[in-house]
Amino acid sequence: MSKLEETVKGLKYDAGGLIPAVIVDAGTRQVLMVAYMNEASLLDTIRTGKTHFWSRNRQKHWMKGESSGHTQEVKAIYTDCDKDTLVIEAVQHGAACHEGYLSCFFRKLSVDGEWEVVAEKLFDPDEVYKKK
Amino acid sequence: MSKLEETVKGLKYDAGGLIPAVIVDAGTRQVLMVAYMNEASLLDTIRTGKTHFWSRNRQKHWMKGESSGHTQEVKAIYTDCDKDTLVIEAVQHGAACHEGYLSCFFRKLSVDGEWEVVAEKLFDPDEVYKKK
Repeated sequence: MSKLEETVKGLKYDAGGLIPAVIVDAGTRQVLMVAYMNEASLLDTIRTGKTHFWSRNRQKHWMKGESSGHTQEVKAIYTDCDKDTLVIEAVQHGAACHEGYLSCFFRKLSVDGEWEVVAEKLFDPDEVYKKK
Repeated sequence: MSKLEETVKGLKYDAGGLIPAVIVDAGTRQVLMVAYMNEASLLDTIRTGKTHFWSRNRQKHWMKGESSGHTQEVKAIYTDCDKDTLVIEAVQHGAACHEGYLSCFFRKLSVDGEWEVVAEKLFDPDEVYKKK
């Protein structure tokens, strides 16, 4: 086993073998999205320099941008004191959110206790994720 | 039920009734920590303006800073497209990490595939978390 594989194995995964990864913009530090990786997707992320995840909904390995072209170029990977979470600095090509926003966190809690959309759409999802 | 309670209930919690919250510095946007909230801790967070969490290890409700005094003053709360994750902008008093670092994410993956400490300790945990 390589040193890298050992390091990846040494993280703390949940019962489903997953670890949450917070993807932040390498320039502005804005949180773009949070998704889950297993050992294989983290190794792919490190080796290819592009973020890969495990989709809990679709139960499938995926590369961010594989449908949309909106890939994330990895600049740095951090873990926390408990080694059970990752923060990944990346350059986002296009936008991170499948709903067309730069960040998935485009809703802010208002003083009235409601979610308000506080960002602008950068693309039309219907155009980018065209049905074939 | 108030509008706020309805909004909090409308989020997507995991099987254990928890939602991950990414706490970021309101000024620099640095990710400080990731922890879990349930409906009650999120409502406490909103109502008191200080972050509250559910500890999965200790199975207990806690306010960040209750032992250390290192509280987090909430400035804004965001949720994502799936409404299953929170990002909270906060002013960190003292440091977020119980190991003495400003951020829990003080380890960076090196080119050699090892975790390297890349931050400086702001306090001595033994001093702050004194045994009584």
